[in-house]
Amino acid sequence: MNQSPARYRLHGDNRSGNCYKVALILRMTDRPFEWVPTDVLARETRTDTFLALNPNGRVPVLVLPDGRILSESNAILIHLAENTSWLPAGAYQRAQVYQWLFFEQYSHEPYIAVARFIVHLAKMGDSKKKQMQHLWKNGNAALKIMNDHLGQAGFMVGEQLTIADIALYAYTHTAHDGGFDLQPYENIRKWLSGFEAQPGYVSMEDACQ
Amino acid sequence: MNQSPARYRLHGDNRSGNCYKVALILRMTDRPFEWVPTDVLARETRTDTFLALNPNGRVPVLVLPDGRILSESNAILIHLAENTSWLPAGAYQRAQVYQWLFFEQYSHEPYIAVARFIVHLAKMGDSKKKQMQHLWKNGNAALKIMNDHLGQAGFMVGEQLTIADIALYAYTHTAHDGGFDLQPYENIRKWLSGFEAQPGYVSMEDACQ
Repeated sequence: MNQSPARYRLHGDNRSGNCYKVALILRMTDRPFEWVPTDVLARETRTDTFLALNPNGRVPVLVLPDGRILSESNAILIHLAENTSWLPAGAYQRAQVYQWLFFEQYSHEPYIAVARFIVHLAKMGDSKKKQMQHLWKNGNAALKIMNDHLGQAGFMVGEQLTIADIALYAYTHTAHDGGFDLQPYENIRKWLSGFEAQPGYVSMEDACQ
Repeated sequence: MNQSPARYRLHGDNRSGNCYKVALILRMTDRPFEWVPTDVLARETRTDTFLALNPNGRVPVLVLPDGRILSESNAILIHLAENTSWLPAGAYQRAQVYQWLFFEQYSHEPYIAVARFIVHLAKMGDSKKKQMQHLWKNGNAALKIMNDHLGQAGFMVGEQLTIADIALYAYTHTAHDGGFDLQPYENIRKWLSGFEAQPGYVSMEDACQ
């Protein structure tokens, strides 16, 4: 018997900001889901069962209520945000949201999330000093771009929260775990506090379960 | 006098697959544009004038006919594809397109485009042997995922061309420049030929001018 789940099923690791993004929008839009713990460090994303869900071997994977499958955290964010206030109705603002989502995956996550993984999760910071210098340099470049941009506004795009804020919040708020100092980034610190004060906000630990 | 351009203006480097994506959809949807040559190797993306267009210092940058600005190649693709056949009408198929766009920027481009940059453009392949091994390993993993997926279909998503095909075509068709051998990837080779046989198809050299 191969019954479709009656609600969303989210395969994720509760230490992953990419998984947190999806858990957060599901909770902030009141969509209940089943959390399926998937330990990246124990290579549970490399089993045959998992690779059948996502051949790229990465969390998060979201199984929709009808049984269809999606991967890539920011693609899932767009899908779940369509026809909600989390994705602007205007075409140009929507395109700006997409712009920040791709910025996050290309210019932010590969430095800020990877630095956190090495220092905080794999505990290998001391043996990878040259790589850490590279990650800190490029991660700080991404943080400076965000900070300069946020100087003009309290949100990444427009006058309210969008999935651009969720996508960039996920790893920015844990940047210190990877050795980044957010003290110089006043606009980012204000934006993080504002995000955490939103109704329905749930921490990473509480969202991913 | 700060007049808005009357048509699209695309700032790009004609050796960049990311720029080719945008030139290609503009041409394949019959939207004329002005090409502004921007030499990445000569650091023309790092001038104050360019950084005012995109603080992240990357091409492509698209200036819309009304003067508003977008960056991030795949975000621009989504924007230009909305309400055309290049982006499916169904929500799940559209989400699959987004999934492949993020796959391209996270798991494909950082290996396949970067290998091509080092070997073909910067001519530094011989002095970066360790990095090349890393790029080839991960690039081939991405090509295998694409090839396995294309075994089921002639297009990346659904029954017709979408921007997922454009995004992945851009650097896959030049993978050999970075030392990748496409011979083992029969489905990819068939898909590349099919793409190039489409009405309106324009080569990288002809599109980016």
